[in-house]
Amino acid sequence: MANYFSSDFKLGILGGGQLGKMMLYTTRKFDITTHVMDSSEEAPCRSACNHFTLGDLMDFDAVYNFGKQVNLVTFEIENVNVDALEKLEKEGIKVYPSSKNLRIIQNKATQKLFYRDHGIPTSDFTRFAYLSEIEDAIDNGGLKFPFVWKAAQFGYDGNGVKIVRQLSDLEDLPKGECIAEDLVPFKNELAVIVVRNPNGDVKTYPVVEMEFHPEANQVEYVICPARIDEAVAKKAKNVALKVSEAFKHVGLLAVELFQTETDDILVNEVAPRPHNSGHQTIEANYTSQFEQHIRAILNLPLGKTESIVGGIMVNLVGAEGHTGDVVYENIEEIMSLEGVTPHIYGKKQTRPFRKMGHVTIVNEDLNDARRIAEQVKKTIKVISK
Amino acid sequence: MANYFSSDFKLGILGGGQLGKMMLYTTRKFDITTHVMDSSEEAPCRSACNHFTLGDLMDFDAVYNFGKQVNLVTFEIENVNVDALEKLEKEGIKVYPSSKNLRIIQNKATQKLFYRDHGIPTSDFTRFAYLSEIEDAIDNGGLKFPFVWKAAQFGYDGNGVKIVRQLSDLEDLPKGECIAEDLVPFKNELAVIVVRNPNGDVKTYPVVEMEFHPEANQVEYVICPARIDEAVAKKAKNVALKVSEAFKHVGLLAVELFQTETDDILVNEVAPRPHNSGHQTIEANYTSQFEQHIRAILNLPLGKTESIVGGIMVNLVGAEGHTGDVVYENIEEIMSLEGVTPHIYGKKQTRPFRKMGHVTIVNEDLNDARRIAEQVKKTIKVISK
Repeated sequence: MANYFSSDFKLGILGGGQLGKMMLYTTRKFDITTHVMDSSEEAPCRSACNHFTLGDLMDFDAVYNFGKQVNLVTFEIENVNVDALEKLEKEGIKVYPSSKNLRIIQNKATQKLFYRDHGIPTSDFTRFAYLSEIEDAIDNGGLKFPFVWKAAQFGYDGNGVKIVRQLSDLEDLPKGECIAEDLVPFKNELAVIVVRNPNGDVKTYPVVEMEFHPEANQVEYVICPARIDEAVAKKAKNVALKVSEAFKHVGLLAVELFQTETDDILVNEVAPRPHNSGHQTIEANYTSQFEQHIRAILNLPLGKTESIVGGIMVNLVGAEGHTGDVVYENIEEIMSLEGVTPHIYGKKQTRPFRKMGHVTIVNEDLNDARRIAEQVKKTIKVISK
Repeated sequence: MANYFSSDFKLGILGGGQLGKMMLYTTRKFDITTHVMDSSEEAPCRSACNHFTLGDLMDFDAVYNFGKQVNLVTFEIENVNVDALEKLEKEGIKVYPSSKNLRIIQNKATQKLFYRDHGIPTSDFTRFAYLSEIEDAIDNGGLKFPFVWKAAQFGYDGNGVKIVRQLSDLEDLPKGECIAEDLVPFKNELAVIVVRNPNGDVKTYPVVEMEFHPEANQVEYVICPARIDEAVAKKAKNVALKVSEAFKHVGLLAVELFQTETDDILVNEVAPRPHNSGHQTIEANYTSQFEQHIRAILNLPLGKTESIVGGIMVNLVGAEGHTGDVVYENIEEIMSLEGVTPHIYGKKQTRPFRKMGHVTIVNEDLNDARRIAEQVKKTIKVISK
């Protein structure tokens, strides 16, 4: 095996967005040579990696040829050509997370079946090859409102998910493969990031909580640690570890969970990569999720996952009504607040709801952090010039 | 003033070594566009900055032309052509720290005179235009052994400093301008990093302690916070603030101090930039010294300087007897220790005592951190292939 900490080792990262960019903080720190491929000339990773390749992540040849130049391939986004990854593995290039896991996770129907097959608690669901089959099932009385429609493939950031309460809610949905899930009333949406290396060492991060806007049904804050009972936190970690054990993944696995009204824990979905629910680990934990992913895929000893201090993460998304060259209004004001660190991803253009950055608020007292987070949210605006 | 957080602002950094590289962690995070100049094709900053210029930092034209392309110039090393910086300032380019302060600091004789003029406690000294004048002073009885010889200019990393106990100790020293300082017996070598922005906001980092190898007289560990009395820590901070007030610097000012046998605090010297005594702030403090320097020179609100957790820093220097392509022997072993983060600067070639990286050890219990630091020091070796 090549020595990672010298120039003869090359790490390939598929995807050059913000998650890749934050991985590069660690590769810079460890002086690991990186090759990044992305389809955008303006990818945030472009100037922070050692070698940048312009290419389509869903294109077999692009992914295969990129992978052949490096010693190990990882990715920061699930929408990658998995056949190319599989061929690379067969030819001896290490791919972490594996193509096998990515194939399961890329399709929400196979992902749900995987949970069912492995006795992992998840909401009940039915799989449909076409949207029209859902209509048939409703007609036949096999499916009742309300339920959650999810596209089997290519959803992201809340796209590809819809609560269906009546027939007309189906109207504008994509026609392809999908699932219908039971709508489970839940108290909290939680997440646990698990990290595992090829040696089989496993660690979990503290359970985090997604706090939703009371009206907009949009995640406003990621709060670490989650403000839940010790017993619920333990149950959440155990479920996440069971998912990890089933996948035997290498790298991070972010496990999104529901805490039901009766304190059951159900798996919603997973992401085999650094995750929005772990951004606060950069400032608030001993080892950031990004460093941890790099440690894991290189089979290095895993770092300590504990929180050092309470951490809250606020996404910076493009304001409605603004499209064009981005301006971060009042960023200086939020930087005067205690324990506030903005992360700007480096996307030149904003548009409504585009993820442009995030802000971390750390404080020994999580209530103080929460109060400051609210002030941050009210103050900074991502607008166009 | 340009909006830093958009692409029309350009920050120029003179020097592309490890301190510049660690500044770039912050410019990436804030998405600030950077131009870096260094005389080495293999400078650690090269692939992490937006634009790299090859050029001699002591050359007037190179520094001036580099500065003309950017909005604000800073530096990560004192050996920079100060006349060029002065001309840039006159032409409206912001230069932080200022050419005036750099001129004072670059010359250890003028630096010492500055302390004397401003009533800042420092050891007694005499200034000499040539080394031969020291010999004359000894002959005349005006100077007695032992004393500390310091070259007035271009010393670094312990070069340019020598304890002189007898005439023969002068033999191989440079012949130029120098000072002879009283050899002050001290209990501890301390440092305080002060940060100041153009608004005049000032903050100090916790006092750190340099722990020396009992025989080799070489700094082995930087320990934060210093294991000293509260009263001594307060005195040290006050002296550092007095130095800061005298310079009215913008950016970081690292103030190196002696704690004498009688608990007086004397200023040894200062550095107007991120400093070896502040590397542990990346992991152990709310705001790293590098982020703080960037905040200060951009006149942004200063971040919180307090420690979150105890931190110890160990320098990774090239082992004796090894010159050539570097290998970090046993780096994986130290990464399995609790709270250990290696930073590899990315210099391809090692040579004896070259600074190749550093390791930070964080722990809630500083004694545990100190124990782990010793294990790190014993385990990792910077050798050649």
